[in-house]
Amino acid sequence: MGETPLPSERLLFIVSLQLPEWVVAEIQQVFPNDDVTVYQSKPKEAVPVPAELYQNATILVTFTDLPDIKDAKNLKLIHTLSAGLDHLLSHPILTDTDIPITTSSGVHGPPIAEWTLMNWLIASRQYIRTYEAQKERRWDIKKDVFTTTIHDQVGKKVGILGYGSIGRQIARLSQAVGMTVHAYTASPRPTPESRHDNGFIIPGTGDPDGSIPASWHHGTDKESVRSFLSLGLDHLVVSLPLTKQTTHLLGDEEFALLSGSSKHPISKPYVTNISRGKVIDQGALIAALKSGHLSGAALDVTDPEPLPADNPLWDAPNVQISPHVSGLGKEYLPRSLSIVKINIERIDKGLPLLNAYNRGKDY
Amino acid sequence: MGETPLPSERLLFIVSLQLPEWVVAEIQQVFPNDDVTVYQSKPKEAVPVPAELYQNATILVTFTDLPDIKDAKNLKLIHTLSAGLDHLLSHPILTDTDIPITTSSGVHGPPIAEWTLMNWLIASRQYIRTYEAQKERRWDIKKDVFTTTIHDQVGKKVGILGYGSIGRQIARLSQAVGMTVHAYTASPRPTPESRHDNGFIIPGTGDPDGSIPASWHHGTDKESVRSFLSLGLDHLVVSLPLTKQTTHLLGDEEFALLSGSSKHPISKPYVTNISRGKVIDQGALIAALKSGHLSGAALDVTDPEPLPADNPLWDAPNVQISPHVSGLGKEYLPRSLSIVKINIERIDKGLPLLNAYNRGKDY
Repeated sequence: MGETPLPSERLLFIVSLQLPEWVVAEIQQVFPNDDVTVYQSKPKEAVPVPAELYQNATILVTFTDLPDIKDAKNLKLIHTLSAGLDHLLSHPILTDTDIPITTSSGVHGPPIAEWTLMNWLIASRQYIRTYEAQKERRWDIKKDVFTTTIHDQVGKKVGILGYGSIGRQIARLSQAVGMTVHAYTASPRPTPESRHDNGFIIPGTGDPDGSIPASWHHGTDKESVRSFLSLGLDHLVVSLPLTKQTTHLLGDEEFALLSGSSKHPISKPYVTNISRGKVIDQGALIAALKSGHLSGAALDVTDPEPLPADNPLWDAPNVQISPHVSGLGKEYLPRSLSIVKINIERIDKGLPLLNAYNRGKDY
Repeated sequence: MGETPLPSERLLFIVSLQLPEWVVAEIQQVFPNDDVTVYQSKPKEAVPVPAELYQNATILVTFTDLPDIKDAKNLKLIHTLSAGLDHLLSHPILTDTDIPITTSSGVHGPPIAEWTLMNWLIASRQYIRTYEAQKERRWDIKKDVFTTTIHDQVGKKVGILGYGSIGRQIARLSQAVGMTVHAYTASPRPTPESRHDNGFIIPGTGDPDGSIPASWHHGTDKESVRSFLSLGLDHLVVSLPLTKQTTHLLGDEEFALLSGSSKHPISKPYVTNISRGKVIDQGALIAALKSGHLSGAALDVTDPEPLPADNPLWDAPNVQISPHVSGLGKEYLPRSLSIVKINIERIDKGLPLLNAYNRGKDY
């Protein structure tokens, strides 16, 4: 009962990183019947990707590099290693061709959710105190601090602004620690079917059927968002794509609403941003942290990036900043490639592609 | 339809900590119909608890202080603020009276599970690198590190040695992040009923029906433990009570088995100890960390405690030490008191007590 071998493809895999040999070997093992070329790209202006590499490929896996239309004649599929395509939307390949494009949406859930929970717990358990004491070989046993300021997440309310694959895995962990989850989406999700996750899902993760949230909210206007921020949340997670409408969506008024509706006078709301820095008015965030309207913030994204050394965000109270790495990890490439593998089969069978980009829909 | 008021009790609440006023007020609010005395104890040898406080009380809530038998005449119930009673087992109140004794078993799950997951994620995501970079206001964007050494927990195997209320909440979080859970208990749990958690459970937490583990293992002999350590675990959690049999249960041979059976040559097993330091042969642990047989360890307990500044454990590679505080938090007292409240009602109704200590059973 051997499987019928699929037609051999010619994969071109473009990454800007120097990949260790074991990673390249791993990539080749994912596609044993195909011809795989791994090309390490240089900054585009300096050394463009050779046109003949594009011309030869049937499958292109890339982060930001795309060919001229004339060099894309053999391409059956372009798979991007990022979750979204906002950085590529104006490229002629997207505007003037019909070459199927798929994204890596769905692979970011576990690492970003782990990054999120890690930051919450470091804050709620005052881990830095423990870490600094260990550096000094000091048994830091002030139990009064631990019994009056340290807290856990049981019974806390988290609002997830943008309930995609990342938000769903954050919801899964939040539910496990005993929190209630409140979901916010752009479009309404009135039926059980409308709450399903239809993209790539890593088995055993996420919220495939959308059953975790205690309540669903929606809208693309400020008033809907403000109503969501008034639920009495302990945590707000920003997991929205950056669009015109979401730029500076959260400012002074929104943080005031979030803070004012909090039920816990001692522990004010905590903000987590794992989408794009510009969704938040950063000056307003700094002010809310300084005034104590927010108890803290975990930020994997900032405005701008890299965050310059003299930016005041670095010194805002109770802020934990990481350099846009929450989604990374050694599982990233294999997971993204598993989507390509599924789609090569689907092309062969004439089935709709997983994670296909829908041209013309601004998302 | 008012509730029938319960008979008023006289509660004596002995703690060694200076409690903030709002905590004392919170305690009194839990028992609105009862007379509550909060007494801050001094080190026992210096200033004993006044005998007349004990004589007057009907309910005693305590950590380590117990009365002489002659002063316990009015006591209907003694509730200890600790999960176990090993520090009290030889006291005449336990050996020579029948006064019901209950424990706080069940209240430690959420904080200790959060402490555990926090430590795993700090290690797997190399958080200290991010923290130290932020202190220097530095955007530390070496993506190659993040794509080749950072990893997440999906698909990892955790073995939980001692599947009580704490182990069950760790199991719950482990399952949520995508791990498989393997449980170890002293006695066999062959039936669904035998796998239930019959103690106090914080709603929405734990594994009440024991449905999370992918496999169950048991035994009180070394061979059974060694077989468990050979499952190919990525994480081992030590959540056992300290007894003669569990003292130095894990030594050179056990760490070698754990390491040797690991499926991941790059990421060796990680050990978490949240029970008692002496369950582990600490010299063997240090050696296994130094040799790379273990990838790291999170230790909330050490041998001895406090850990002296010149102890080599402080410098073992990839070890994260905290000063026996994983179970603490401002939710601790209210949760423990909720057990007392339930049991006052049960005494009144003649029902079996929750978390009752079973005299004569060494656990």
